[in-house]
Amino acid sequence: MVKPTLGSRASLAVAAVAALATTASAQTFRRSAACPSLGCIYPPDQSSFIAGQVFDIRVEIQAPANGSTPYNNGVPSSEFALYIGGKGADMQEVSSFYDREDPQVESYNFTYYEDLFQKANDSATLVNVLAKSYRHVTLFNPGEYELKLQYNGGSETLAHWTVLPLAEARQAKNVILFIGDGMAPSMVTAARLLGHKTVNGKYKSRLQLDESEGFGMQMTHSLDSYITDSANSATALMSGHKSTVNALNSFTDSTGKPYGAPKFETIFEMARRLYDAKIGIVSTAFLADATPAAVVAHTPQRGAYDYVIDQFLDGGAVAFNGTPQNFSWTQWDGPDVLFGGGGKDFVPKASNKNVSKIDRFLERGYQWSTTNSTLAELDNSKRALGLFSDSNLPTWLDRHVYTDNLASFGAWAPENKTFTAPTTDVPGLKDMTLKALDILHTRSKHDGTPFMMMSEAASIDKSMHVADYPRALGDLLELDDTVRATLDRLEELGIREETLVVVTADHAHGFDVFGSADTEYLAAQTTIEGKRDAIGTYLESGLSGYQVPQGVNPQNQSEFVGPQGPGFPVTWEPRYTAAFGLAATVDQYEDFKTHPSVRATSLEPLKNGTYRASHDDSPDGFFISGVLPTSNDQGVHSLVDVQVFSFGPGHELFRGMMDSTNIAQKIAQVMDLGRDKKGDLAVSQRKGKGKGKGEGEGKK
Amino acid sequence: MVKPTLGSRASLAVAAVAALATTASAQTFRRSAACPSLGCIYPPDQSSFIAGQVFDIRVEIQAPANGSTPYNNGVPSSEFALYIGGKGADMQEVSSFYDREDPQVESYNFTYYEDLFQKANDSATLVNVLAKSYRHVTLFNPGEYELKLQYNGGSETLAHWTVLPLAEARQAKNVILFIGDGMAPSMVTAARLLGHKTVNGKYKSRLQLDESEGFGMQMTHSLDSYITDSANSATALMSGHKSTVNALNSFTDSTGKPYGAPKFETIFEMARRLYDAKIGIVSTAFLADATPAAVVAHTPQRGAYDYVIDQFLDGGAVAFNGTPQNFSWTQWDGPDVLFGGGGKDFVPKASNKNVSKIDRFLERGYQWSTTNSTLAELDNSKRALGLFSDSNLPTWLDRHVYTDNLASFGAWAPENKTFTAPTTDVPGLKDMTLKALDILHTRSKHDGTPFMMMSEAASIDKSMHVADYPRALGDLLELDDTVRATLDRLEELGIREETLVVVTADHAHGFDVFGSADTEYLAAQTTIEGKRDAIGTYLESGLSGYQVPQGVNPQNQSEFVGPQGPGFPVTWEPRYTAAFGLAATVDQYEDFKTHPSVRATSLEPLKNGTYRASHDDSPDGFFISGVLPTSNDQGVHSLVDVQVFSFGPGHELFRGMMDSTNIAQKIAQVMDLGRDKKGDLAVSQRKGKGKGKGEGEGKK
Repeated sequence: MVKPTLGSRASLAVAAVAALATTASAQTFRRSAACPSLGCIYPPDQSSFIAGQVFDIRVEIQAPANGSTPYNNGVPSSEFALYIGGKGADMQEVSSFYDREDPQVESYNFTYYEDLFQKANDSATLVNVLAKSYRHVTLFNPGEYELKLQYNGGSETLAHWTVLPLAEARQAKNVILFIGDGMAPSMVTAARLLGHKTVNGKYKSRLQLDESEGFGMQMTHSLDSYITDSANSATALMSGHKSTVNALNSFTDSTGKPYGAPKFETIFEMARRLYDAKIGIVSTAFLADATPAAVVAHTPQRGAYDYVIDQFLDGGAVAFNGTPQNFSWTQWDGPDVLFGGGGKDFVPKASNKNVSKIDRFLERGYQWSTTNSTLAELDNSKRALGLFSDSNLPTWLDRHVYTDNLASFGAWAPENKTFTAPTTDVPGLKDMTLKALDILHTRSKHDGTPFMMMSEAASIDKSMHVADYPRALGDLLELDDTVRATLDRLEELGIREETLVVVTADHAHGFDVFGSADTEYLAAQTTIEGKRDAIGTYLESGLSGYQVPQGVNPQNQSEFVGPQGPGFPVTWEPRYTAAFGLAATVDQYEDFKTHPSVRATSLEPLKNGTYRASHDDSPDGFFISGVLPTSNDQGVHSLVDVQVFSFGPGHELFRGMMDSTNIAQKIAQVMDLGRDKKGDLAVSQRKGKGKGKGEGEGKK
Repeated sequence: MVKPTLGSRASLAVAAVAALATTASAQTFRRSAACPSLGCIYPPDQSSFIAGQVFDIRVEIQAPANGSTPYNNGVPSSEFALYIGGKGADMQEVSSFYDREDPQVESYNFTYYEDLFQKANDSATLVNVLAKSYRHVTLFNPGEYELKLQYNGGSETLAHWTVLPLAEARQAKNVILFIGDGMAPSMVTAARLLGHKTVNGKYKSRLQLDESEGFGMQMTHSLDSYITDSANSATALMSGHKSTVNALNSFTDSTGKPYGAPKFETIFEMARRLYDAKIGIVSTAFLADATPAAVVAHTPQRGAYDYVIDQFLDGGAVAFNGTPQNFSWTQWDGPDVLFGGGGKDFVPKASNKNVSKIDRFLERGYQWSTTNSTLAELDNSKRALGLFSDSNLPTWLDRHVYTDNLASFGAWAPENKTFTAPTTDVPGLKDMTLKALDILHTRSKHDGTPFMMMSEAASIDKSMHVADYPRALGDLLELDDTVRATLDRLEELGIREETLVVVTADHAHGFDVFGSADTEYLAAQTTIEGKRDAIGTYLESGLSGYQVPQGVNPQNQSEFVGPQGPGFPVTWEPRYTAAFGLAATVDQYEDFKTHPSVRATSLEPLKNGTYRASHDDSPDGFFISGVLPTSNDQGVHSLVDVQVFSFGPGHELFRGMMDSTNIAQKIAQVMDLGRDKKGDLAVSQRKGKGKGKGEGEGKK
């Protein structure tokens, strides 16, 4: 774990130059990611690697033709070289270090706006670029490395890399990583308020997350911005590398292309390569979405969905839209389990050259399921694809309370081979996760290999984006219920003591509860001022109305368990609701009620590309003016550190304040994924096919 | 630690009845705190006690004369009795259990509104009450207790109490409890963003809090509402008991009086009683404010400032405004250190019957100081009072950056014996805390006693209430700097290994950072829509502008340290500021700048008691409509769990998810404050005067 301190500042001084903005004021709009100077090194300064982790190196030499810092009429010098060496040792050119041919130089240009004024004036800066990439390299020796890029006749960019120490021992055989997408600490607190009863200020039951054996938080900054999206944040959790917004397990180069960017291996890929680990991917999102994609996909553009789905099957060297990749990558032939939504991306359509991805999975021997019933019947010994909706799966609240909404989610219609049937028989996160666990356990037990699973509660985030707080919190409670059930199942299977379970979020939303709302009083008022008086703060926030059953004798309420069992509200429509809010909103109407209909968006599009609030969304509500640009149609992510809950072997490592990249690094440590030059013994212990070592080994 | 689980529900069933709302719908406006039925027991159901902790018992029998649940024409039956017994054992009347006379019965009435409609109609419910209080009792035997109140001819209220196990060993000699008032997790994250540099998404230095040896979070609910104020939340942290909004170390009875309510001992009082511990109280607030008051004061009304100050000197049995208390309480003759603001409450004025509290302290042998210079010169061997401002101390930002504002803070004017002089020589939290530590250490070393200190960073909260985010975060960074300096000083004094340091918050504000703001672009726009376009989200949030020095060569920026040293911003007025927001606001104008002038409030009062936003507050800003009632002149607290950072012996206890009351209970465990019947040996080990046992010992 890299843990910078004030004391280490001096030793990092030479490397720090690469981190600076070119000008003091224009730092928000950058020429390109992680490249404030005109010579760029990827992986950038401050990168840390698991020993033996596969990655690509790329250098770019940039020359702006105009703008605030033009260089040499926009002509970069063709003379440039990248040197690498162990700290304090002599450096050598990278091609020499890796004993390989120097790659071909690419030449292209791109444009960017230097700030909002330039953007408003459409006054772009043109940058010419020379670049080259060293593919599929590795550093085996733990320790510190220095890199130096010489370019443009005397300029230098320095970078400092760290290869992490090897684990002293393997602590866990298996790992399950749960991601509550967008799950801010405030949402965990609010979910507890809705799902559990208090007596005189003390909870009578609590969340499973509250019983976490290891507890910490992690910082979610992306590589070049302090607010992240789910692509780069999931990347950090799964590979140990910071990247740029929209990027999946790759650095965002300046080509603007979704393929060819410098990549790095995920811990799932490493576990497959080293141990033939069985891999499970579960999400309530459409499966090409950022978080499930981050298990194995490599692209700076998360929106390249077809490319992502091809990578699920074939890994990071697969062709993009017919363009072959001219490099090798870690061998990969598909996960053992892939369960979620997004069937529309798997059926033939123009954007995937009319190829049925379902057929591609079936041809590779996958079982597949499209309903909760058939999910349960899947053979635990075989690989499985589950596609349970056209896009995102319905939320917990729509599956359990407002079930009329299910009809608007498309289920598989076998006769048409599309996802257009009314949804009636759809699994939730718990169903999918427990079945995935059964398959992974059976398959890994069969050949003595470990397993790793990523399971994502995606609609915590998706609901929060449209300020549908109850649906977000319902899905958070479902995640908590799923974690509880997973720990129980691990116990039943006899593998709880050998399986690390980590639960974290990828980023937050600036959400909190600030009081209660008397929805009856609010509805009865006719002015904004009157409606605002329905908000009860401090003492008048009272107790959680979600735990007060309507029509139940008060003497029996404390023992009353709602229809969804303990850990969920007994009612979603109390008179006194929690008053929820966001630190930044679009314009909206708010009545603080749980809305029976899915709140797809609180905004109506206007013709000029901006949005205005729709009163239809909250007919009893009052108007709240927004803060975000009016081109936004939904809320945004926020800065706050997110929690890390952990159970089982190795949980001691997940305590206190961490960086997002530490999650992947610590999982690698617990799983003993690091390999040094003398790592053959460890490698030979793996079961299954292939050999995971020997490619691109550096001479330190 | 009480850790309720689903499994324990059955065993708590009989006790749970007391926790219910009388009606399912009217639960936000309650008849009285912790008393949903007509028979009330204080301490209420679910209370936990440190063995030997002193407290009062009170019962109330209530009979509404009108309203939705009238009883017997408003006449409570005079036949009622409270029984107590170890769980499963026979119960006996409390007077018999404690072998004392039954106290006199009080008779009075009160009114309340059952909901907002009743309030709007001014349609109050009248309640007649009979009550009695058993003062200054104790439970020595760890274990479970059951209580039963029989009243109104057959009705019963049950309560379940727990006396916590004794500590197996004393782990720390001394304790320092830091409270960052209102310090939400999001504010810790934001403070790091302002005060520390990142390189490619990774921090080069971090907060001292980030290095916490123990790490957890705590739930801040008050006794009868899920949003707390600082009085009841500080009470939980310092006594281990939940209480009601505005209440300090006492339960809010229905008398409506600031005195006479049922009290409970704080861990500071216990440490003084058992060990003659030296006690320090430090705050940047006015000293009669809730958090410093909670160390020793007992009143359900935090606003009874004069009563609070008298209790600093004489403890919880002191007369209120000339009304003597007819009960004994833990002996107390003043803290060893009392440093903060609020001098106006110490000078003679009508509200304190023209008594100089300063003179009262001086008569008791205290030194006193009113400036940073004289603070440094105080004799470390003597007790000390420090009053450094008329009200709250100036914030870190006003003391270090916008020093012109100091003139508006009143300093001691010796010639006039008031706090009206221009402030020039004023300490901050670090100055006060380190001097307090020196005094406590010297005094405790002298007679071999331990010490305990509470040190509060108050204006994190006070600034956040008026949406002055930079001042809030500046004071949070000052707290972090103070914790770092305190740990260093403990090391220098050779007592780091014997001193537990806990840093937590009492509650949160619904704050977060959701992007950046280009303040130049924002100021240049003339429409709200244009100004909102200055907000940069995700990738466009960029890097922290507060770490980019203006006018410094980019090559040297990474090593540049601002005038306030490492851990603070290098500039408070960058072009690209963080875009801050709150989940709930009053109406406001916002320009996302650091305001040179103190933002006393963002609202102008209107004649009808409501408020409107003042454009003068953010002349470049745009209007954001609020959510809170328009009678609010400032922001409010929020729900999110807050962090618990800990260092030193016993830090292992402060891991994972806790309740606010656990903080006091765990400190008591680390300090071995619990005493059972056979506790004489432990008691006899204490140094100093008096004997702390034998009063009110119960027969279990």
